Amino acid sequence: MATVSDILAQRFGPRFDTGKSQREQHAHTTTWLPSQAPDGVVFPQDVDEVREIVRICADHRVPIVPFGAGTSLEGHVNAPLGGISVDMRDMDRVLEVNAEDMDCRVQPGVTRKALNTHLRDTGLFFPIDPGADASLGGMASTRASGTNAVRYGTMKDVVLALQAVMPSGEVVRTARRARKTSAGYDLTRLMVGSEGTLGLITELTLRLTGIPEAMSSAVCSFPSVEAACDAVIATFQFGLPMARIELMDAMSVRAVNAYSGLSLPQTPLLLLEFHGSEAGVAEQAATFGEVARDHGSTAFEWTTDPAERTRLWQARHDAYWAIRALRPDSDALATDVCVPLSRLAEAVTRSQQECERIGLTGPVLGHVGDGNFHVTLMIAREDEAERAKAREYLSWLAELAISMEGTCTGEHGIGQGKRAYLEAELGAGAVNMMRAIKTAVDPLNIMNPGKIL
Amino acid sequence: MATVSDILAQRFGPRFDTGKSQREQHAHTTTWLPSQAPDGVVFPQDVDEVREIVRICADHRVPIVPFGAGTSLEGHVNAPLGGISVDMRDMDRVLEVNAEDMDCRVQPGVTRKALNTHLRDTGLFFPIDPGADASLGGMASTRASGTNAVRYGTMKDVVLALQAVMPSGEVVRTARRARKTSAGYDLTRLMVGSEGTLGLITELTLRLTGIPEAMSSAVCSFPSVEAACDAVIATFQFGLPMARIELMDAMSVRAVNAYSGLSLPQTPLLLLEFHGSEAGVAEQAATFGEVARDHGSTAFEWTTDPAERTRLWQARHDAYWAIRALRPDSDALATDVCVPLSRLAEAVTRSQQECERIGLTGPVLGHVGDGNFHVTLMIAREDEAERAKAREYLSWLAELAISMEGTCTGEHGIGQGKRAYLEAELGAGAVNMMRAIKTAVDPLNIMNPGKIL
Ligand SMILES: Cc1cc2nc3c(=O)[nH]c(=O)nc-3n(C[C@H](O)[C@H](O)[C@H](O)COP(=O)(O)OP(=O)(O)OC[C@H]3O[C@@H](n4cnc5c(N)ncnc54)[C@H](O)[C@@H]3O)c2cc1C
Ligand SMILES: Cc1cc2nc3c(=O)[nH]c(=O)nc-3n(C[C@H](O)[C@H](O)[C@H](O)COP(=O)(O)OP(=O)(O)OC[C@H]3O[C@@H](n4cnc5c(N)ncnc54)[C@H](O)[C@@H]3O)c2cc1C
Repeated sequence: MATVSDILAQRFGPRFDTGKSQREQHAHTTTWLPSQAPDGVVFPQDVDEVREIVRICADHRVPIVPFGAGTSLEGHVNAPLGGISVDMRDMDRVLEVNAEDMDCRVQPGVTRKALNTHLRDTGLFFPIDPGADASLGGMASTRASGTNAVRYGTMKDVVLALQAVMPSGEVVRTARRARKTSAGYDLTRLMVGSEGTLGLITELTLRLTGIPEAMSSAVCSFPSVEAACDAVIATFQFGLPMARIELMDAMSVRAVNAYSGLSLPQTPLLLLEFHGSEAGVAEQAATFGEVARDHGSTAFEWTTDPAERTRLWQARHDAYWAIRALRPDSDALATDVCVPLSRLAEAVTRSQQECERIGLTGPVLGHVGDGNFHVTLMIAREDEAERAKAREYLSWLAELAISMEGTCTGEHGIGQGKRAYLEAELGAGAVNMMRAIKTAVDPLNIMNPGKIL
Repeated sequence: MATVSDILAQRFGPRFDTGKSQREQHAHTTTWLPSQAPDGVVFPQDVDEVREIVRICADHRVPIVPFGAGTSLEGHVNAPLGGISVDMRDMDRVLEVNAEDMDCRVQPGVTRKALNTHLRDTGLFFPIDPGADASLGGMASTRASGTNAVRYGTMKDVVLALQAVMPSGEVVRTARRARKTSAGYDLTRLMVGSEGTLGLITELTLRLTGIPEAMSSAVCSFPSVEAACDAVIATFQFGLPMARIELMDAMSVRAVNAYSGLSLPQTPLLLLEFHGSEAGVAEQAATFGEVARDHGSTAFEWTTDPAERTRLWQARHDAYWAIRALRPDSDALATDVCVPLSRLAEAVTRSQQECERIGLTGPVLGHVGDGNFHVTLMIAREDEAERAKAREYLSWLAELAISMEGTCTGEHGIGQGKRAYLEAELGAGAVNMMRAIKTAVDPLNIMNPGKIL
C-alpha cells in the first residue's frame, strides 16, 4: 500500500489525497454499518487515468473501491481491506446527446440531476429517479430504480451500453448504440448491478424518454395498507400506465407533513403520477379514481399544477430525511425488500406488526407498483440493545420476503449489509456461478472486495 | 461418443434417437448455412433428466446442443463437433399463472402460441412475438424480440427468472419472483441471449401483460423509405406509445400481396398497431395520421376490426415465407442488422442500393421502431456465384451497421453465422470478457461449442 500511495502521489499530485477527512468522507456514512475508510482517494479525469490507477493497484494487489456520490446504503463504498477509493467526481461530462435517437453518452460522475439540467431544452429527460442525487455510474452499479421504475424501468432497462476498465486494465465496451442487440453475452446487464466488483465504469450510453405532453399527480387516502395494495393490483389489471405509484403509511405521512409543511391526511396514502397526452392523463386519473373508490378510498385529489406537483414529489423524495428527523438522535437503517404484488399487502402489514412487537420505530415507504418497500428503522445511537433488535428485524424481514418468493433487495443492492441473505435467496448454484464469474474477471480480487460475495 | 450413445439408449430407450432423419431434423434447416447433424437426439421430461444427460455428456466430453423449436437462423442448433441434441419438446407444461402478479412459470418447450392459448381466459398475454412459433427456452436463448418489441421489449425485459442446468450439473435459479431486484450479478440477463453455450434452461418465469382494452391497426403508404423512417422518429418524439411499427419496402409488399391475397399499395409501407383504452387508441391513430401526413404519407387507413387486424398481422408474420415464395428454387438468407434510428433511413436505402449494385434480390422488412431491419437475400440453390455474392453482402451489411454504431444482429443472435463480426462490433476487450465467462462456466466447452465465440 505504501508503494501505491507513493506512486499515486507522484502521478496525481493534489488529485490523490490521504488526508483523514477526505478518507472518512469516502467511507460509508449514510447508514448504520461501521465506516471503514480507504487508505487514499484519487480523482481521475479520464479513462486513461483510470487504467493507470487500475494497473498500479493490480501490480501491488491493492483493493480499488469505486466511488460515485456515496449515497448507497449497504456499505458499498467501505474499504474493509483498505485500498484506494476511486472518486469519479471529475469525470462529469455529458459527452453527447442524440435527440433523434433519444439517447446520450455520459461520464460516470454525472449525476441524474445534472443530466436532467443538461437535457432541459431537448424535450427529453432521464427517467430513473432514486431520490438522492446519485451519480449515473453509481446508479448503474447498484441497479438503482426508485419512484419512476413502474413505468420507465430500472437502470438495467435504460443503460444501452457501458465502457469499463477491467481489473486487467483492459477497456471493455459492452455494446454499441442500437436500441436492441443479440450480439453475444449481455455484458451491459452483467456490469449493471455489479457494485464495482467487476470493473470501473468509465462511460454510459443511456436511453432517454420524451417529456410527456401532460403530467398530473394525485394523492389518495385508504383505510388500510391492504386496501391501497389491492387498488394497485386492480390498477395494473386495468392496464393503466402509471408513471409513479408510491405508498406511505400513516407514520411516514406524519413525518413528511412535519418535515415539509404539508397537511396530507394521516392515513395510508398512495401518491401517483400520470404521464401522457392531456386527454390520456385525464382519463387515467378518472379511471384510477374509480378503482380507488372501489377499494374504499376515502379521498382522491389530483392536480396538473406544476408547482403543486413539484412540492408533493419533493416531499416524497425528502421522506427519508423526514423520517430521520422523527428521531434526530438516531441512525436510520433503510431496508429494501421486494415481493410479488399479490403478497405486498401481507408483507407490509406483517412488517409493521413485527416492528411493533419488538418495539422498533419503522415507518414504511413503498414503490408499490413494483412490490418494493422500505421500512426505515430508527436506531438510537450507542444503544446496543436497539441495534441488536434492528439486526434481528433485518434478518426477519429478508426471510419474510424470500419466503414470499421475493428478494432481500429491490434496488439498494447487496453491498456488505445483505451478503448474508444472498444464498438463502438464490441458492448455492447461483452464488457459485457469481463466484465463478467474479474469479474469472477479477482473479486477484482487487475490485471492491468484500461486497456482494 | 459411442459410450454416451450406449448409456443414453439404455437410460432413455425410445426417447433417445440416433436415426438419420431425426438427427437431420435437428440440424439447421431454415437457413443457408450447411447442416451439421448431431450424433443423437434425446427428449428429457424434467430437470432431473436434463441433469443426468449433462452429467453423462460431461463425463465423456461430448458436446450438448440444446434444441427448442429449431427456428433460429444462424446455425444455432448445428453440431459442428457432433454430440447430443437435447430437445425440450416434452418439457412443455405451463407450471403456474399468477394473475395478480401478471407472471407465469413455464417449462422451456412451451411455445409462445401455446402459452397465449393457455392464457386465453386470464385477460393476460405474453407479448414477445418473433413471428415463428418458437419455444420460450429458444427465445430466451437468442434474446428474441420481433414486432411488439418497440412497446413490450425483448426477451431480456420479460424474463424475470430462469432455472438452468449448468455444465457442472448444478442447478442455478437466477432470481425469484419479484418484479425487480438488485441481488447480485444479473444471471438472468446473462443466460438470456447465451444461445445454449452456458447451460440448459429448464424453467422460465415470465412477465405477462394485460390485454389492452382496445387495439387498432393501421397501414400507411410513404413515397420513400426515408419519409417512412422520418415519420417513425417524429412519432417517438411525440411520445406515442406504439405497440408495433413495421416497415415493408415495395418488393416485400409485392411478395406479401401475392402470398396472402392482399392488395396493399406497393410502396414503402408502415404497418402499425396501437394498444390502449378506446379513446387512447383513437387519439394515437389520429396523432399518427397527422405525423404521417406531415412526412408525405399518401394514404393512411386504420381499423379496429379484429378479423382485419388478424389478417394484416398474419400476412406480416408470413412475410418471410412470402419472400421465399418469390423464388421457390432459392435459399433465403435472413440478415438482421440494427442501427440507431437517426441512421435507419440511410442504412435501409444503402442496403437496397448495394443489393441492386451487386445483382441480388433482397426485399426489406423492418422492426423500425427499434432500428432493426432484415434484408432477406435470395440465393439460387447450387449457384456458387450467387452464394459468394451473398456472403460478401453479409459482411458489407454488418460493417455498414457497425460503422453506424449499430449491431450485426438485433434479434437473431450470433450462432455460427455472425461470429466473424462480434469482435469488429465490440472490440477485443468485450470478446475476451465473454470468453473468460464461458471458460469459467463451461471449462470443458461442452455446451453448444462453436456458437457465439
Ligand atoms: C435519501 C436516499 C434515498 C434513496 N432512494 C433510493 C431509491 O429510491 N432507489 C434506489 O435505487 N436507491 C436509492 N438510494 C440509494 C442510492 O441513491 C443508490 O444506491 C445509488 O445508485 C448510489 O449511487 P452513488 O452515485 O451514490 O454511488 P456510490 O454510493 O458512490 O456507489 C455505489 C456502488 O457503486 C460502485 N460504483 C460507483 N461508481 C462506480 C463506477 N463508476 N464504476 C463502478 N462502480 C461504481 C461503488 O463501488 C459502490 O459499490 C437512496 C439513497 C438515499 C441516501
Ligand atoms: C419465419 C421466421 C421469422 C422469424 N422472425 C423473428 C423475429 O421477428 N424476431 C426474432 O427475434 N427472431 C425471429 N426468428 C428467429 C427465431 O424464431 C428465434 O431465434 C427464436 O428465438 C428461436 O427459438 P427456437 O425455439 O426455435 O430455438 P432453437 O432454434 O431451437 O434454438 C435457438 C438457440 O437456443 C438454444 N436453446 C434452445 N432451447 C434452449 C434451452 N432450453 N436452454 C438453453 N438453450 C436453448 C439452442 O441451442 C440455440 O442456440 C424468425 C424465424 C423464422 C423462421
